[in-house]
Amino acid sequence: MMTSPYTLMSSCDISYREVVSRWEPDASGRMVAAALDLYETQGYESTTIADIAARAGVTERTFFRHFSDKREVLFAGAKDLETRVLEEIAVMDEAPLLDMATAAYVRVAIVFESRRDFLSRRARVIAGNPNLRERELLKTSSLSAALSRGMVARGVPATTAAIAAECATVAFVTAFDRWLTDPGDTGLVQLIAGVATELKSVAANSSPEHAARNSNPGSEQEPAAAAD
Amino acid sequence: MMTSPYTLMSSCDISYREVVSRWEPDASGRMVAAALDLYETQGYESTTIADIAARAGVTERTFFRHFSDKREVLFAGAKDLETRVLEEIAVMDEAPLLDMATAAYVRVAIVFESRRDFLSRRARVIAGNPNLRERELLKTSSLSAALSRGMVARGVPATTAAIAAECATVAFVTAFDRWLTDPGDTGLVQLIAGVATELKSVAANSSPEHAARNSNPGSEQEPAAAAD
Repeated sequence: MMTSPYTLMSSCDISYREVVSRWEPDASGRMVAAALDLYETQGYESTTIADIAARAGVTERTFFRHFSDKREVLFAGAKDLETRVLEEIAVMDEAPLLDMATAAYVRVAIVFESRRDFLSRRARVIAGNPNLRERELLKTSSLSAALSRGMVARGVPATTAAIAAECATVAFVTAFDRWLTDPGDTGLVQLIAGVATELKSVAANSSPEHAARNSNPGSEQEPAAAAD
Repeated sequence: MMTSPYTLMSSCDISYREVVSRWEPDASGRMVAAALDLYETQGYESTTIADIAARAGVTERTFFRHFSDKREVLFAGAKDLETRVLEEIAVMDEAPLLDMATAAYVRVAIVFESRRDFLSRRARVIAGNPNLRERELLKTSSLSAALSRGMVARGVPATTAAIAAECATVAFVTAFDRWLTDPGDTGLVQLIAGVATELKSVAANSSPEHAARNSNPGSEQEPAAAAD
């Protein structure tokens, strides 16, 4: 299954364990970096919160001021991401619903572009652990629900908003996954747009791959009912 | 966020604690029913595996022969559901991709129709617990991945198959949620078809709700690019 995206906007890749002041600037970022290092080197299951705190140069108490558990440390930016998606959808010019929903993701995706290496490492750790995958799916679900609420606040009926948000989320997650795993140079923003276009094509039944195999060419103009 | 569907095909609603033979017919079904009763009455967190086993009239050892943990007992039919979806997609007549993917769900959805009360109770328990919601999302993700694999086996390119499977899953899950929460009499199969049609409409930008609000009527014929 696809991995999915989370900005860790508050995190940084630099571990500066030597410089531990009582004020602890960016303690959260140090814990994220420390946790990822440890999950990669000694495994997620074998890493304790004490390990992470020690490596980041903080106390366990500080850890729990920032994160509820060992999983949350890999989802540090999820709430910020939800907030930003909601802000984007609120100020967006009127447009076709799916385009608006996708554009909200595109606008926040820009912050990911410079963090590909970090996000790839993070995605590999998550892919290797069902508990982390579950948490990621919950965050993605929560993000999609936020986007849907943002559209409802603009007057879109609830089910229509949910469908548009879910489709945009499919485009976002698929593009994010491809961006992290494919060796190509295509940027995330471009990939999201590309997948969204392909999604529309699949939904409109005008995919060239399908058209080539379709035994009933007439149906491309007029999609059949979904139920059999 | 939406709840999502799992058949508990092996379960039954009847608890017959008095009749516990060594052979234990439908022990799995009894454990599912017992767990759901306990999760509803004393809460998911407060229920132990020993409680479930005792209520179902089995040993804890029997519990662990069937389920890996306290969560899995609510997802007893998930693997069967995956297998059935794969079987359906394998034998399906050629058709537009999203229609095929949706039709695979429609065909397995028929088994849910008679179990609405049970599935509603189950959905309420899951909605109330983040751990259960995470597990449900993982199962849904796995189901969508299976459907995608089934289409790849028919020669569909991987990304296209993933997109079609994800869109069909959105339709299925949205319809399932509506079916369990709305008081209406519309059947699940009909709801899936309806949501799939709405999804296509959202993707094609021809939603009547949208058209009424759209300030640029020309864009309905020719959807704009997704990225801004």
